Amino acid sequence: MTETIQLARQLIQIESVTPDDNGCQHVIADYLRPLGFQIEPMPFGDVSNLWARRGETGPFIVFAGHTDVVPTGPADQWQYPPFSAHIDDKGQLYGRGSADMKSSIACFMVATKRFVAKHPDPKGSIGFLITSDEEGPAVDGTVKVVEALEARGEKYDYCLVGEPSSSQQLGDSIKNGRRGSLSGRLTVKGIQGHIAYPELAENPIHTLAPALKTLTETVWDTGNEYFPPTSFQVSNIHAGTGATNVIPGDCVVDFNFRFSTEQTPNSLKQAVHAILDGCEFHYDLQWNLSGLPFITPAEGKLIQAVSKAIKQKTGLQTQLSTGGGTSDGRFIAQTGAQVIELGPLNATIHKIDEHVSVDDLNQLTDIYEQTLINLLVD
Amino acid sequence: MTETIQLARQLIQIESVTPDDNGCQHVIADYLRPLGFQIEPMPFGDVSNLWARRGETGPFIVFAGHTDVVPTGPADQWQYPPFSAHIDDKGQLYGRGSADMKSSIACFMVATKRFVAKHPDPKGSIGFLITSDEEGPAVDGTVKVVEALEARGEKYDYCLVGEPSSSQQLGDSIKNGRRGSLSGRLTVKGIQGHIAYPELAENPIHTLAPALKTLTETVWDTGNEYFPPTSFQVSNIHAGTGATNVIPGDCVVDFNFRFSTEQTPNSLKQAVHAILDGCEFHYDLQWNLSGLPFITPAEGKLIQAVSKAIKQKTGLQTQLSTGGGTSDGRFIAQTGAQVIELGPLNATIHKIDEHVSVDDLNQLTDIYEQTLINLLVD
Repeated sequence: MTETIQLARQLIQIESVTPDDNGCQHVIADYLRPLGFQIEPMPFGDVSNLWARRGETGPFIVFAGHTDVVPTGPADQWQYPPFSAHIDDKGQLYGRGSADMKSSIACFMVATKRFVAKHPDPKGSIGFLITSDEEGPAVDGTVKVVEALEARGEKYDYCLVGEPSSSQQLGDSIKNGRRGSLSGRLTVKGIQGHIAYPELAENPIHTLAPALKTLTETVWDTGNEYFPPTSFQVSNIHAGTGATNVIPGDCVVDFNFRFSTEQTPNSLKQAVHAILDGCEFHYDLQWNLSGLPFITPAEGKLIQAVSKAIKQKTGLQTQLSTGGGTSDGRFIAQTGAQVIELGPLNATIHKIDEHVSVDDLNQLTDIYEQTLINLLVD
Repeated sequence: MTETIQLARQLIQIESVTPDDNGCQHVIADYLRPLGFQIEPMPFGDVSNLWARRGETGPFIVFAGHTDVVPTGPADQWQYPPFSAHIDDKGQLYGRGSADMKSSIACFMVATKRFVAKHPDPKGSIGFLITSDEEGPAVDGTVKVVEALEARGEKYDYCLVGEPSSSQQLGDSIKNGRRGSLSGRLTVKGIQGHIAYPELAENPIHTLAPALKTLTETVWDTGNEYFPPTSFQVSNIHAGTGATNVIPGDCVVDFNFRFSTEQTPNSLKQAVHAILDGCEFHYDLQWNLSGLPFITPAEGKLIQAVSKAIKQKTGLQTQLSTGGGTSDGRFIAQTGAQVIELGPLNATIHKIDEHVSVDDLNQLTDIYEQTLINLLVD
C-alpha cells in the first residue's frame, strides 16, 4: 500500500461531518511541518481552517480542499462501514470522503513531500488552504481565510482545488471556472376571493402566467467560449390553500440562475424586473447571490501546467469545463488567482458506497507532483 | 311578534348543522299537516328530507329549502349566541340560519297557511321539498328526493327556492339560473433533477407555463342573455419540495370552470385537452362535474308571477341573475321545472353574526303568499 493510500485511509477513518474537522487538519499539519511548512490554524466560529506555506517567493501555488464530508446517509445501506476505508478486491477504496475529497488531500501531501525531496529549493512557494466547511454553509471556511490573507496582503498566483472533476477517466476533465448562482423568491400579490366571484378577486396565478412564460422562454445569453448559456430554473411554485373554491391571495415562486460571465447579477436582476414590471401585478422579490462566476483562461500558466502534467502521466488531453455546481473555487478566484479544479472521478460523490480507484489515486499523486514540477522547476 | 318571526326563531334555536336536521322538519310537518298536506319523510343515509304536498292537480308549485346550517365558527365571536335567535333593538334577527335559510322556510309556512285559509280549494297544488344536506356533500338530499319523485312519475311545474337572493334590498334580485361547475386536477409530469444540471431534468413548471398562459387568457365564450361569460380560475398550483436546488418532478394544478349554457362539460373538456395536447409534456387530468348550468326563461309563468308579487309588495322591479355559487336548484331544474330562487339579503350568510331584518321577513311572507295567488288563483 502506497503512502497516498495509507494517508487517504487515515483521513477517511476520521469521522468529520461538516463542520467538524475532528483532527484531520492535525494529521495534515503534522505531515507538512517537517517538510518546511509554516503552519497556521485559522479557525472561524466552529469551522477549522488550515493555512500552510513553504517558501517566501513567487510563483506561489496553493492546494485547496476540505476535510469535511457530507453525512453518510443510512450506514446500513453501505457495502462497508462508511468510515472503514475498506479496499475491495477490485482495488476500490470505499468511504465517505473517498472521492470528495480526502483522497485528493492525501495526494496533495504525498506529491508535495516527493517534490520537496527532489527540489528542496524551488523557484516559488507551495501552500495548503484546507477548510472543514465546504459542504455546509461555507461562511466561516475558505472565504474567511481568503479575506484574512487579502487583509494582510498575502498573494498567491495559482490555486489547484482537489474537487473530484473527472468524469469517465482520471484527468479527462478539469474545471477552469464555475457559473454564478443567483436566486430569487418572487411573491405575486393578488386578492383572495370565492371562485364563483372572480370579478371580486384577483388571481395571482393568472396575472403571473404571462410573466412565467416569458421568464422560462427567455434566452438570457448564448454562453461564450468557456460557459454554457445562462440557465433559469424555477424550483418551487406554490399558491392556494388546498380549497378548490378559493382564488388564492398570493403565489410564491423560487427561481435560480446559473449564469455565465456574459451576465452580472445586476444585468439579470434588471432583466427580471423589466419583465415583471411590464405585468399587471404587485410583487415582492428577494434576491440571494450565492456565487459569482469565475473563469481561469486556458492560456494561463496554471492550466498549461496541469494539462501538460495530465498528458504526461495519463496520455489524456484533458477537457476544460465550467459545468456543475458551485465550489470554494469561487471564493479564491475573486482574488485574481488562476484557479482550477482537478480530482478523481465524481460518479459516486455524496452517494451511498462512495468510492474511488486506488490506482487513480496513485496516478493523481503523480499528476499533482508533475504540476509542481511544471510550475516551479521547468 | 308575527307568526313568521316566531317560527323563524323556533327553527333557528334548533342546532341543525349539516346533516343533522335535529327535529326542524318535525316542526314543519306538524305545521303543514293541519293545513291539508300529505307528509312524507324521505330519509337517505344520515340526511333528513321532507316531502309534503297539498292538492292533486296542476299547476304544482313547490317551495324548496334546507334546514341544515353551516357551522357557527367561534361562538364567542358572535354578538349573541348563534342559536339564541336574538332580535336586537334595530329589528335584526341574529343567528346561524337566520338568512340561509330557516327564515325563508318560516315565510313559506306562514304564506301557505294564509293562502290556504283564503283559498282552500285553489286551482293547483302546493308542495314542500326540504332537506338537511344542502350545505354539505348534497348527495343524499334534494337530488335523491328529485330522483324518487321522478321514479314514481310525480311532476311539478314550478319551484321557488328560498335561498337568500337579495342583494341590497329585499326582492331586488332573484336567481333564475346558475352556472355549471366543472373542476379539474392537472398533473404535469417532468423529470426531477439538480438545478445545476437542467439538461438532465425536465422542469414541469417550465413546460406548463405556455399552457397556463393560454388557459388563463382564453375567452371561452361571451355568455348570453342569461349568463355571464364562462369563467376559468386556477385555485391551486404546487410544485417543488421546498429545496431551492432541485427541479421538481411534477406540478399539480387545480382549476374550475363556472360555465354558461353556451358550453357543455364536453365542450370545455375538449378545449382544455386541445390546449394541453399541443404542449410538450405528459400530463394526467382528473375531471369532476359538480353541477350543470340551468336557466328558467324570463317569459315563463313562474318568473312572471314572482316578479309581479315583488312589484306588488315592495314596488321594486326585480333583476334576474345567474351569478354566485351553486344551489340545490341545479338538481330540481334538471326535471324541466321552472326554478327560481328568492330569499332575504345574502350579505351575512356563512359569517359570524349572520342576521336578517325582521321587517324583511314579514314582507317576504307577503311576497310568497302573493306568488301563490298569482300562480294558483288569478
